Amino acid sequence: MTDLSTPPRIERFVPADHASVDFTGGFWESWTETVRKVTVPTQHKRLDEEGFLEVLNFHLPPAPLARPIQPSGLSMQHFFDSDFGKWIEAASYTLRAHPNADLEAKIDQIVEQLAQGQMDDGYLNSWFIRREPDKRWTNLRDLHEMYSMGHLLEGAVAYFEATGKRRFLDVMIKAVDHIIATFGTEPGKLRGYDAHEEIELALVKLYRVTQDERHLQLAQYFVNERGQAPSYYDNEARLRGEDPKDYVYKDYSYSQAHVPVREQGEVVGHAVRAMYLFSAMADLAVETSDLTLLAACNRLFDNLTQRQLYVTGGLGPSGTNEGFTREYDLPNQTAYAETCAAVALAFWGHRMAQIELDSRFTDQVELVLFNGALSGISRDGEHYFYENVLESHGDNRRWKWHYCPCCPTNIARLLASLGSYFYTSKPGELAVHLYGANTATVAVGGHKVVLQQDTRYPWEGDIALTVTPEKPAAFTLHLRVPGWCEAATISVNGANVQTTPIKGYVSILREWAAGDIVRVHFDMPVQMLHANPLVTEDAGRVALKRGPMVYCVEEVDNVAAPQLLKLPVDPQISARFDPDLLGGATVLEGAASQAMPAEWGTTLYRAVPPRYNPTRFIAIPYHLWANRAPGGMQVWLRKE
Amino acid sequence: MTDLSTPPRIERFVPADHASVDFTGGFWESWTETVRKVTVPTQHKRLDEEGFLEVLNFHLPPAPLARPIQPSGLSMQHFFDSDFGKWIEAASYTLRAHPNADLEAKIDQIVEQLAQGQMDDGYLNSWFIRREPDKRWTNLRDLHEMYSMGHLLEGAVAYFEATGKRRFLDVMIKAVDHIIATFGTEPGKLRGYDAHEEIELALVKLYRVTQDERHLQLAQYFVNERGQAPSYYDNEARLRGEDPKDYVYKDYSYSQAHVPVREQGEVVGHAVRAMYLFSAMADLAVETSDLTLLAACNRLFDNLTQRQLYVTGGLGPSGTNEGFTREYDLPNQTAYAETCAAVALAFWGHRMAQIELDSRFTDQVELVLFNGALSGISRDGEHYFYENVLESHGDNRRWKWHYCPCCPTNIARLLASLGSYFYTSKPGELAVHLYGANTATVAVGGHKVVLQQDTRYPWEGDIALTVTPEKPAAFTLHLRVPGWCEAATISVNGANVQTTPIKGYVSILREWAAGDIVRVHFDMPVQMLHANPLVTEDAGRVALKRGPMVYCVEEVDNVAAPQLLKLPVDPQISARFDPDLLGGATVLEGAASQAMPAEWGTTLYRAVPPRYNPTRFIAIPYHLWANRAPGGMQVWLRKE
Repeated sequence: MTDLSTPPRIERFVPADHASVDFTGGFWESWTETVRKVTVPTQHKRLDEEGFLEVLNFHLPPAPLARPIQPSGLSMQHFFDSDFGKWIEAASYTLRAHPNADLEAKIDQIVEQLAQGQMDDGYLNSWFIRREPDKRWTNLRDLHEMYSMGHLLEGAVAYFEATGKRRFLDVMIKAVDHIIATFGTEPGKLRGYDAHEEIELALVKLYRVTQDERHLQLAQYFVNERGQAPSYYDNEARLRGEDPKDYVYKDYSYSQAHVPVREQGEVVGHAVRAMYLFSAMADLAVETSDLTLLAACNRLFDNLTQRQLYVTGGLGPSGTNEGFTREYDLPNQTAYAETCAAVALAFWGHRMAQIELDSRFTDQVELVLFNGALSGISRDGEHYFYENVLESHGDNRRWKWHYCPCCPTNIARLLASLGSYFYTSKPGELAVHLYGANTATVAVGGHKVVLQQDTRYPWEGDIALTVTPEKPAAFTLHLRVPGWCEAATISVNGANVQTTPIKGYVSILREWAAGDIVRVHFDMPVQMLHANPLVTEDAGRVALKRGPMVYCVEEVDNVAAPQLLKLPVDPQISARFDPDLLGGATVLEGAASQAMPAEWGTTLYRAVPPRYNPTRFIAIPYHLWANRAPGGMQVWLRKE
Repeated sequence: MTDLSTPPRIERFVPADHASVDFTGGFWESWTETVRKVTVPTQHKRLDEEGFLEVLNFHLPPAPLARPIQPSGLSMQHFFDSDFGKWIEAASYTLRAHPNADLEAKIDQIVEQLAQGQMDDGYLNSWFIRREPDKRWTNLRDLHEMYSMGHLLEGAVAYFEATGKRRFLDVMIKAVDHIIATFGTEPGKLRGYDAHEEIELALVKLYRVTQDERHLQLAQYFVNERGQAPSYYDNEARLRGEDPKDYVYKDYSYSQAHVPVREQGEVVGHAVRAMYLFSAMADLAVETSDLTLLAACNRLFDNLTQRQLYVTGGLGPSGTNEGFTREYDLPNQTAYAETCAAVALAFWGHRMAQIELDSRFTDQVELVLFNGALSGISRDGEHYFYENVLESHGDNRRWKWHYCPCCPTNIARLLASLGSYFYTSKPGELAVHLYGANTATVAVGGHKVVLQQDTRYPWEGDIALTVTPEKPAAFTLHLRVPGWCEAATISVNGANVQTTPIKGYVSILREWAAGDIVRVHFDMPVQMLHANPLVTEDAGRVALKRGPMVYCVEEVDNVAAPQLLKLPVDPQISARFDPDLLGGATVLEGAASQAMPAEWGTTLYRAVPPRYNPTRFIAIPYHLWANRAPGGMQVWLRKE
């Protein structure tokens, strides 16, 4: 156990309270309002009608089936405490700025049921209590017990912060006490840790509320124990009478438990698990000033973003392990790129930027927010993608609910707390990471500073940032210059400032006074991105990007499936705001050529090259695809 | 039941007896000799050492495990009678021209064990007798009982034809009698049919030996019953206490049992099943003069070859159902393209050409023989591919044995009987379908005709065909002009003949006398094939072909992974015979450009296009890949 007092202490950039960031018109207001008004209520409806909440009827006899069927015919999973845990978290975030007695009552009911079902020793997992009590703590490798508890814990912290009610928090602290009594290195305890990471980062959240060092130490224990030899999972399998070699995923890299975490250098295994683990490692690096954990985080972040990330910010190409395969393996049509993984990359990147102000972290947060995470929710706020492919022949459609509905509540809790990703601060410093119309109040040291962004970002690159400290105060304002931007200008009260960023941030130290206006201009031309040639699936292709937004060609806007199109050698592509497209979005237009299958008749292969006819194409922001008529879609477009 | 005497009678082109076709040096001799000397004996060794033959120890108590493990750690399957059935078939073919007492003794031992294990009522399936006697005939949908019996039956016919010994044949006739007593439309019988087709074509083989019309009628029954409503499989599932809706493959198109066979127009489901069914349908069309079956075969053959066939002749793109997905879905890196399916396409095409002389059938037979089927066996004759991908990053390697070792014996029995694919005949007509050095004796009506091909085909396109009837005789010699050939010349004794083929064959009617020499020249330039634009995976790419041979670029011959290469606008590609390449093969060489990942450093995406440096490439015949050092491979090469 690391001595918590070990210097040097890392002073964290603390995120803004999301409830103090008020989106005022524009892109993000439309999404956060959709989440609050549509997504959160409909998700409760789904959880209810699909029988997820039925498990909470602890007073009823245990349900006989190990795998009951949801009314819609989908099978249930044993980790759906996590789903209402995440839903409570998302709902709690919306409660902060928008009190809602009905919503609060729904949460209170779940909390009350959980409290009544909790076992005397503190154990709390409704699946195992109701359905498989004999399996409690017998299979950390496969059964997600602590993953589920972790999500309940995050929900409890969020609900406490939203309402001040301690009931749920106390229930979960009792559950954590039970875990502390059960797991650890001390004699008589199990040296286990959950194969699906989650509780680690939840425990740090709890610690930040309770300041109880046992909560932090438990997170530390789980992270430190992970991947140690001999494997706990081997031993646990033998105790169940199984051969550890029969493990379906073959080795524990699936759960980042193949070697101790500090020795890991390549991001491997299940993508969501990896992101949750690395988020917890970043949290622990801060809280325990553990530079070895920080070094591993930095190494892994670079590995991910330099070798394993889709241009959309999606990650984890394979459905087989819901995760990573080999470096540079980024197939488009079969991309798994789970919504949860992109959401969790935002968690991780946000945490890394709390330690070191470097846009290599926050660029990725912005990337997934506008693309690979946001694509996971429909424009109407109640349909979802689990997999976020980069190419489709029209068979990928959004679903209303899913046999493993982990993604809907994940994107909801991200968007419901989005404000906290915009700003971070510590004494004397205030960092602006994201852009979009909002008014926020952020504490810088002891001072409150009101920030107001007037902008049509992401559709336009001009931002007027009004800085209003409660009284004049000297501090450094750090402004992120996005990695995609090749020409930026920044002025303060009309005077240009030096815009050569350091690690992606322009830092302005001055005494700020009410009404100071920072004007930012980011050039936002259409960009054509090429992929590293080792990403062989994208060879000869380009992805269109404008500002933070990745584009795709969707069949519904075009005369033919996008796979038949080819961009010319030197495409002239123009951008135009279309107010009628799904609430308004900037689309791209240009000339292309199109192959004509009809001229092939019944021929499958021939020596004569295909003929191409001139045509035009329209591209829309990637996150908006599959909201209209079904059809093909492509991000990486062929180019002469 | 169709009246077997219904006119019009289809007069079949009868294949040459493979044992009368002697490969004399050159390409196919090297393969058929490898199969005889290496493949057949090592496969018996594998069957033995992996415990496949252990199941034949009927005198021992039933083995306790439903799924025992092979010594190599691979799991066993319940249909491995099929594997020694196919092995006996392949071995029997080699016995015809090369008697081998040791090999015969090995077969006799298996036959004797089968005979002793056969149940009194004729039932014969060693898995179910030994291990799961209670499951006999309870699950035709999943358990392959008749598939296994069909392969034993094919083995029995081949062994009888090779040795004249009736023992195995009689055992199998008794087994067929049991099936006749069990299945059919008559009251008291089960109206079932095996979901994995195979026994249907085996029964036609049996009928051709026995002339027992009950054998033909049983095949007819199975084919006619297939896909009829209500489904036998639904009912059978209910009898097992299962819900038919729980079927893992969702609907019976997986087994071509979704609609009656005459109504099928798109090739669907498991590829090997489909090919076996369609082969039986072609056989039955001939034997029963059933033009409705023939029409379905023609329609399905066109669907396959015009919309669903890889350029290599591989088929069935998806591993999920080991079969077809949607038309034009032909991904390269994830191609399943099972060896068995390509082998079985040769079976089907060969049968179709026995009905109608049309090179649209035999072109596909040649295609798979040189490419998509032959790629399934290593040059050393004892390593195999189950999946025949068209692109690899180096992780696809041939295996010595497999948990489902269906492919090795399938490619062995095809190559061991290859001669029969070269020639077919009926009174007054003799058709030459394939080219390659051999001496053959073929019956044309009552006459014996000796044919001798002197050629370096497939490496060169010149063939000298000496025709020696036992006495001068008038008949039509049909010579296939391969579909890939754009310029052919044919002469008889020095005089050119008209070479505009009809349905791909040039037909020469004359009185043939000893020593007549037909000289054939097929132009064999390097061809660059483009794919129909609906095959979106191949857009902007070309496949190299020379004669019947599809080429690939393999990393071991080149400076870089093939995925980094790009052919120029107008490639100059030369062909050169390399005597040292895996026994000798013609390779292709040319200029290309190569992307340089090193210049990208840690960058994953950028606006600057990749730089390409000039380089050269070598391509080898596709079937020879993965016989040397591991590395990348690609058939469809990018082109400017």
